[in-house]
Amino acid sequence: MVKVGIVGGTGYTGVELLRLLCVHPDVELTCITSRGEAGQHVSDLFPSLKQFIDLMFVEPSSADLSKCDLVFFATPHGVAMSQAQRLLDSGVRIIDLAADFRMKNLEEWSRWYSIPHKAPELLGEAVYGLPELHREKIRQARLVGNPGCYATAIELGFTPLLLKRLVDPTTLIADAKSGASGAGRKAELGIIYSEVGDNFKAYGVEGHRHHPEIVEVLSGVSDSEIQLHFTPHLLPINRGILATLYSKLTSGDEHTVRDAYTEFYKNSYFVDVLPQGMFPDTRSVRGSNFCKIGITVCNKTGVVKVISVIDNLVKGAAGQAVQNMNIMFGLNERLGLDLAPLVP
Amino acid sequence: MVKVGIVGGTGYTGVELLRLLCVHPDVELTCITSRGEAGQHVSDLFPSLKQFIDLMFVEPSSADLSKCDLVFFATPHGVAMSQAQRLLDSGVRIIDLAADFRMKNLEEWSRWYSIPHKAPELLGEAVYGLPELHREKIRQARLVGNPGCYATAIELGFTPLLLKRLVDPTTLIADAKSGASGAGRKAELGIIYSEVGDNFKAYGVEGHRHHPEIVEVLSGVSDSEIQLHFTPHLLPINRGILATLYSKLTSGDEHTVRDAYTEFYKNSYFVDVLPQGMFPDTRSVRGSNFCKIGITVCNKTGVVKVISVIDNLVKGAAGQAVQNMNIMFGLNERLGLDLAPLVP
Amino acid sequence: MVKVGIVGGTGYTGVELLRLLCVHPDVELTCITSRGEAGQHVSDLFPSLKQFIDLMFVEPSSADLSKCDLVFFATPHGVAMSQAQRLLDSGVRIIDLAADFRMKNLEEWSRWYSIPHKAPELLGEAVYGLPELHREKIRQARLVGNPGCYATAIELGFTPLLLKRLVDPTTLIADAKSGASGAGRKAELGIIYSEVGDNFKAYGVEGHRHHPEIVEVLSGVSDSEIQLHFTPHLLPINRGILATLYSKLTSGDEHTVRDAYTEFYKNSYFVDVLPQGMFPDTRSVRGSNFCKIGITVCNKTGVVKVISVIDNLVKGAAGQAVQNMNIMFGLNERLGLDLAPLVP
Amino acid sequence: MVKVGIVGGTGYTGVELLRLLCVHPDVELTCITSRGEAGQHVSDLFPSLKQFIDLMFVEPSSADLSKCDLVFFATPHGVAMSQAQRLLDSGVRIIDLAADFRMKNLEEWSRWYSIPHKAPELLGEAVYGLPELHREKIRQARLVGNPGCYATAIELGFTPLLLKRLVDPTTLIADAKSGASGAGRKAELGIIYSEVGDNFKAYGVEGHRHHPEIVEVLSGVSDSEIQLHFTPHLLPINRGILATLYSKLTSGDEHTVRDAYTEFYKNSYFVDVLPQGMFPDTRSVRGSNFCKIGITVCNKTGVVKVISVIDNLVKGAAGQAVQNMNIMFGLNERLGLDLAPLVP
Repeated sequence: MVKVGIVGGTGYTGVELLRLLCVHPDVELTCITSRGEAGQHVSDLFPSLKQFIDLMFVEPSSADLSKCDLVFFATPHGVAMSQAQRLLDSGVRIIDLAADFRMKNLEEWSRWYSIPHKAPELLGEAVYGLPELHREKIRQARLVGNPGCYATAIELGFTPLLLKRLVDPTTLIADAKSGASGAGRKAELGIIYSEVGDNFKAYGVEGHRHHPEIVEVLSGVSDSEIQLHFTPHLLPINRGILATLYSKLTSGDEHTVRDAYTEFYKNSYFVDVLPQGMFPDTRSVRGSNFCKIGITVCNKTGVVKVISVIDNLVKGAAGQAVQNMNIMFGLNERLGLDLAPLVP
Repeated sequence: MVKVGIVGGTGYTGVELLRLLCVHPDVELTCITSRGEAGQHVSDLFPSLKQFIDLMFVEPSSADLSKCDLVFFATPHGVAMSQAQRLLDSGVRIIDLAADFRMKNLEEWSRWYSIPHKAPELLGEAVYGLPELHREKIRQARLVGNPGCYATAIELGFTPLLLKRLVDPTTLIADAKSGASGAGRKAELGIIYSEVGDNFKAYGVEGHRHHPEIVEVLSGVSDSEIQLHFTPHLLPINRGILATLYSKLTSGDEHTVRDAYTEFYKNSYFVDVLPQGMFPDTRSVRGSNFCKIGITVCNKTGVVKVISVIDNLVKGAAGQAVQNMNIMFGLNERLGLDLAPLVP
Repeated sequence: MVKVGIVGGTGYTGVELLRLLCVHPDVELTCITSRGEAGQHVSDLFPSLKQFIDLMFVEPSSADLSKCDLVFFATPHGVAMSQAQRLLDSGVRIIDLAADFRMKNLEEWSRWYSIPHKAPELLGEAVYGLPELHREKIRQARLVGNPGCYATAIELGFTPLLLKRLVDPTTLIADAKSGASGAGRKAELGIIYSEVGDNFKAYGVEGHRHHPEIVEVLSGVSDSEIQLHFTPHLLPINRGILATLYSKLTSGDEHTVRDAYTEFYKNSYFVDVLPQGMFPDTRSVRGSNFCKIGITVCNKTGVVKVISVIDNLVKGAAGQAVQNMNIMFGLNERLGLDLAPLVP
Repeated sequence: MVKVGIVGGTGYTGVELLRLLCVHPDVELTCITSRGEAGQHVSDLFPSLKQFIDLMFVEPSSADLSKCDLVFFATPHGVAMSQAQRLLDSGVRIIDLAADFRMKNLEEWSRWYSIPHKAPELLGEAVYGLPELHREKIRQARLVGNPGCYATAIELGFTPLLLKRLVDPTTLIADAKSGASGAGRKAELGIIYSEVGDNFKAYGVEGHRHHPEIVEVLSGVSDSEIQLHFTPHLLPINRGILATLYSKLTSGDEHTVRDAYTEFYKNSYFVDVLPQGMFPDTRSVRGSNFCKIGITVCNKTGVVKVISVIDNLVKGAAGQAVQNMNIMFGLNERLGLDLAPLVP
């Protein structure tokens, strides 16, 4: 049994982590902290978990996380980096669901997150927690930075193309659409129902935090500086990201491209490359840890279109974190995650 | 031309008032105040009005409202009552879209709005702005309290039954459902998209502010103390209220009941009593000032079911306010309000 | 292992049954029939099940259901009654998710379903599959009629009141709201997105098929003819029923009422009676087999309000069917059903 | 007064045309035909129009359209081309809201609409009804092919770039998202609420009917064969199209680009080029005839992003048709169309 603690479990990634961990056969949930909700039962805040979780939120200061095997940070950006060193020193392993340990480029990171990094010395050790790319490194990692939700969908969608050098890495376009839970559980005018419902818009058109993260990861995959245009949009749905990806083929055809995907993901249970002519919708992964990918190539122009979907709260956050945990502790990667999507 | 000022135009009832007034042929919009947005163009906040409104929000203190013929208060509860006397003294007439002048029972009012009333001496003069009930009084009024949205739908639905004493006034049930814009334009966790979308709930199950308002008005109609059970629910839609009303017939049958409605509303353009077997949906009034009412009577049990729908922002707020204005200034009641609903 | 066959698995209750059964530890899914989709892989029709179900739809005629221990009928009304006797004769037990075996009153049944009943001789033996009422009978049953979705929510909500004779059984009102999946998976103009989205309406205002079913069941509970007014409404959400129930107390108070519920449901894991002042929303049971119930009593008028929610596809259909199967085969009632709701 | 007839008014573009025409000051609506609904009042089918339209649907055969000044075809593809010649011969002018007269390239047209064209001799005369491009031709036209909804949004978004030769015409990408009403008012499984709600998907990924239309129009604008990748997506909203457009700058910068737009649209009231840093959402044009356009240029890569939104039923169909009518009959282009968008 892995003894698990959660820091900051009151956002949507927190409650999703609880939903997944409470039925995980090899996890013992020992502690969950919240500054704001300390003393409350988890089920008072999240009635849907009443039959599943019998814990109370505790003050961060009074939680003894050092006895955990693993601590998940489901906190805002900037929290994990303050506490990581102390926990690591106690032998606790860490998965941060926020952005503190996602990037190596400190300058870019500070520019986008508007705070100085408090643990730059840990960035070298931190592993980017995208199992399909870094499974072996994750296995050994003490400290994992769980990828951003958009980043997950886009990186899984572009990786085989770039790795096999099938496309021009300076022509990447990612037109991505996310459900509203991606904006988090917070009181903000722009995300109230009457602003989002029966409406659709782009945002961050001129820049978004996940952009430098994706560029860093995909430049690594491509072994050259990529150029990516990324436009996030806000969908009036609760969960789900669909990324429509465009790039220019430099060699090969649809057959070559399809082979690159099936080959690259052949041992990755959670990435499902769809047959020719099929493209995924967001609900086909709702509540599950799958990433589904559809591909087509325009023979006339050599443009590759890829459609990649995930549930932003599962493969884009909590589910990926549990997958990372499974790998870190030598468990079956699918353990606790083998749930069928909820349709409709 | 009626010279109109608006105090506090940044909420949904404010923007709706602007949408209606900007095409009203007999209105000159002279001034709109906002503490928070002073100096901003109206169209910066509401791009949808860019081609229609060329005004800036001004500081309440620097607005000379005394030159207006009419001032609308589209403010939170408690604002109009502080400023009403001074404006009335300057000869300005007032329509308050908040609750300050809706009720006569001061004690009940204070209990539900949690503040002492600052202008109790004006309550006697204030007219409850439901034109279908008080058209003549509104014509003369200097000060109109515009009804609550739930109150409008429920009062229009029950009035003919109570006025003609067709039902037992102690058996009233109003099961009402409202779109999310009824909660206002504000940053509140409970109304963000991820809490409301693909979800449905009752709220205020044990008490809601519109309850005493409705009881006061319908007791007046009935000329006896009514008993009403009112349950509001939150719908994942932007606009619209549908109230399903139940009461126990004491005399007559479906024919008598239907006659009572058609007779009572025969001169009320905005109330549409549907033919037998037809019941309205919320979209059939979307964006319009209509109230549509469907009726059925159970022969076996004598229970009358009435379904009453309005657009909460139009007939439930801004449209009704404009209708009141038209009446107060001797204009055709329909002026500026004769817009076809938006379907789908 | 229970050998299970499914007749007609292409509607929403069918795919939901598949979602639940494919992770059930004691079920072997042997066969699924469909006239229209025979020869297709289940996952071609329902890509969300690709990793979970490796079956093809087969022609009803070529399926050997007689080797199953249990057959679920997820067909339109009228199918199960044609095939039941033959299967029972082969020793196969049956759960019909349609309406063929829900009612005893043949005349009422035929009036609402517009067809003559083809197996009236089986109605005496058929057990109404609401485990919280008929657990013991279900255990022995060869033939179970799975309750309607509205019926489940309303019957669970009213039963303790009627059984303890706390309310006047002639004053029952059920104002119920259902998500669109309750209308089934079929090409029908009235349920396309543009008719249902951002809209809300009542339907079946003057009569609905579940009405006689509920009256029959609750009259049995009450041991007297009840009078119920039932109004179904269509919500722009995928899943979920919320029923707001009203009735008139004849003895006792909120305390007595609450005790009746907690006592009656103390051994029913899937019914969750909420503490005072709390009321459920539909998402708190999304994807799960729970029914959550909130209660309040008006001291002044003695009206009891009960709010009962279920997921119409789970506790209202497929989940309840699996629960019935568990009971019929001596398994733990919760087996395969202990899934945490999906929030948000 | 323009005497107007409508052929086939029972779809969403038909009812939208009615909504707009019934308040148009210079239109006399004389006749509306429908094969399926003949003998029904318009308001029986569309209760929202009850106070506005007092017409019945008539049999196509019994309608004397030859007395109209103008006939709108709001029919499926293939109808207008059978009846056009006869009407033109009677001196009636025509606007077809379907696709029969949108394209010049007959071969491409037949390939996408799967029927032979019945009036190829009229294609030369027919004018493509995008007023911002062809205002003068429309003024004289007897026969106007009203553009497709996606086509309108995308063509208005790309035209200034191509006309001024600012971008490489072989690098065009249009990632477009449409509300569900774009799929029409018809009983089809794929568009029922439970398939579309809380879901998002691409469709027509490998080809869509509007693609050849857009290519033909923009190649004309560009005076060279363009290459366009177009991906339509289905949004869970009722109305609205948002197209995110990408292309590669060949000369100039953001300043040049912005100038090209403001210059080109300076006399086009219904196209609103937003200031720097602002991008439109679909609701900002809901129910109105505006197209709103936001623009940004990436200095590093020279990629231009344009976001173009319309209401698919107004500027994308019925509103544009009315705008064309106004131009054809020498009326003010804005007549009857100067409605403020409905927000929220």
